[in-house]
Amino acid sequence: MKIAAVEGAHYHIPLPVTLSDSTHGEMSAFQLVTVRVKDDEGGEGLGYTYTAGRGAQAILSIIRHDLAPLVLGEDPRRVERIWEKMWWGIHYTGRGGVAGFGISAVDIALWDLNARRAGEPLWRFLGGHDPGVRAYAGGIDLHFTDEALLEQAHGFLAKGFRAVKMKVGRPLLSEDLRRVAAVRELLGADTPLMVDANMHWRIDEAIRASRALAEYGVYWLEEPTIPDDVAGHVAIMRQGALPVAAGENLHTVFEFRNYIDAGAVAFPEPDVSNCGGVTIWMKIAHMAEAHNLPVTSHGVHDLHVHLLAAVPNASFLEVHGFGLERFIRNPLDIVDGVATAPDRPGHGVEMDWDALEAHRWRP
Amino acid sequence: MKIAAVEGAHYHIPLPVTLSDSTHGEMSAFQLVTVRVKDDEGGEGLGYTYTAGRGAQAILSIIRHDLAPLVLGEDPRRVERIWEKMWWGIHYTGRGGVAGFGISAVDIALWDLNARRAGEPLWRFLGGHDPGVRAYAGGIDLHFTDEALLEQAHGFLAKGFRAVKMKVGRPLLSEDLRRVAAVRELLGADTPLMVDANMHWRIDEAIRASRALAEYGVYWLEEPTIPDDVAGHVAIMRQGALPVAAGENLHTVFEFRNYIDAGAVAFPEPDVSNCGGVTIWMKIAHMAEAHNLPVTSHGVHDLHVHLLAAVPNASFLEVHGFGLERFIRNPLDIVDGVATAPDRPGHGVEMDWDALEAHRWRP
Repeated sequence: MKIAAVEGAHYHIPLPVTLSDSTHGEMSAFQLVTVRVKDDEGGEGLGYTYTAGRGAQAILSIIRHDLAPLVLGEDPRRVERIWEKMWWGIHYTGRGGVAGFGISAVDIALWDLNARRAGEPLWRFLGGHDPGVRAYAGGIDLHFTDEALLEQAHGFLAKGFRAVKMKVGRPLLSEDLRRVAAVRELLGADTPLMVDANMHWRIDEAIRASRALAEYGVYWLEEPTIPDDVAGHVAIMRQGALPVAAGENLHTVFEFRNYIDAGAVAFPEPDVSNCGGVTIWMKIAHMAEAHNLPVTSHGVHDLHVHLLAAVPNASFLEVHGFGLERFIRNPLDIVDGVATAPDRPGHGVEMDWDALEAHRWRP
Repeated sequence: MKIAAVEGAHYHIPLPVTLSDSTHGEMSAFQLVTVRVKDDEGGEGLGYTYTAGRGAQAILSIIRHDLAPLVLGEDPRRVERIWEKMWWGIHYTGRGGVAGFGISAVDIALWDLNARRAGEPLWRFLGGHDPGVRAYAGGIDLHFTDEALLEQAHGFLAKGFRAVKMKVGRPLLSEDLRRVAAVRELLGADTPLMVDANMHWRIDEAIRASRALAEYGVYWLEEPTIPDDVAGHVAIMRQGALPVAAGENLHTVFEFRNYIDAGAVAFPEPDVSNCGGVTIWMKIAHMAEAHNLPVTSHGVHDLHVHLLAAVPNASFLEVHGFGLERFIRNPLDIVDGVATAPDRPGHGVEMDWDALEAHRWRP
């Protein structure tokens, strides 16, 4: 069995509501890159990745000009061999970044193809621990008014969520505390509330914020500072009062190893669409388990529900605010705070290609 | 003063001789990406980066579609502001990799533009320590016969070199030792001889090789294992018998910080064409100095001669084997082992655009 085609595409998707965080500012659109891998016996798999607004054309270029020639003709079942071939083939300009996003998309498509051929949903193909995964709604809301913030939280509860994340990192810590207090009051004491600083703080600011936010029963503090500073994360973990979540900006298994070995993270948060795909996401999850840590996720929840359902150390699934569900035929349902991994073969995500076509990017 | 144009191009350059190392195998061509930045008052600067064979079209895409829109209209003299704007603008798909190569090329062009406007050569514009820089010839010769290896070393001496690097990482350590012994005998005891394993070894293999190679007076051991393994490099430094050089695969100032803080490297080796440009290369050099370490270089020697000439802690300049000098109007001369940074304004590299045009890449 051989890979016969690798087809990429790049779409520019407007967001229904303008979103905001402390690093990316206001966001009105995101970029989606899809990859369809076909074998010579009629099998097919779908992979995809996304960006906050830049780099997608380069990802498509890597897939078309560099990864596809490496992958064509290979046996799609030998994902470890193909992954290693991609990693070393693009190594000099790789090790994360644009190449990592491209490798992730191809690898996801391969796992989808293989699970579909086996007639198994991805979550069971990968270990099948528990199809029910606790989910939280990931608000991207730093510049929302207090009213819009509370209205959003109301909406999350109405949609079935029983856990919520909000942005922090306003100019004054007192503003963050006021907003967190308001959302905490709305949610009640027992509903998990996470906060996400999107790398905004210095170490001393993060420690001060961590201690102050702990008063409001915050579940985790996400990305308090830049991802490059492992020692800084260790200090925030040790001297702050909240567990730290991090991972959307760590793009190799080695970056996670460095964080985990150093005690820099309590909730490793790999994103299958940028950490190297399913192959690497699973290794990170298992490495976390071996270190007595849970694993959580970032973005692309229709994929991550399978991965978290597969492993025994699943923490919460992030249901991400970029709204790809408008272009997916069977979007994920949340019932009483729980998302259930579907039983369709593969990851079961079917794009609405006609609706996407209107958003195809052209130079 | 404003940046008025950012023009990129991608060339596929055949090598005069097929080269080889333990990771990239046989190489018959390399990819060159050039960037010309023009301001609205007639100023111009040239930047460039290269790859071992994959990723250049993605680098060009990042420059055209993502970096150019961020840079246009900025004051070219404010390099720190522009650098930060590029880094954060492409951060989610950045932090090294393809984006890092693109940022490097743009940043080099900005420094060239500014030094040219000042009428100063880059080496003096950046500090002007000493225009004379010791240089070594970087052989890319793992699969050469012993005869070809010795012939190459003879040629290096004839060209004025007084220091030589060769590849190691053959299937058997005994083969590496035989080849190193032969080159050492040809060079005599006092000529620096570096070896480069291109990430080939496990930690235990690297330590064993380091101890064995020390018998032949090897100057440094370069890239003994994968760049992701900081702790592994520390072990090779402590338990081996040779100082370690590393850096061509470290693409951020933070990766160098982690290596230097951990005691994982004795010869930091940033490559200005992939570490983030002149702005970051200088910060790495100064950080090394503050840690009582020298700084060396990788690739693009016509640029690095300026950077090493600027700082007080310069070690050897690598004169790289990719042979870009065929397309440069004033290639670097080596006299009695020393390269001299030119006094032409900027970096003084002028491409032979007509000769390059025949190699322009077309999809």
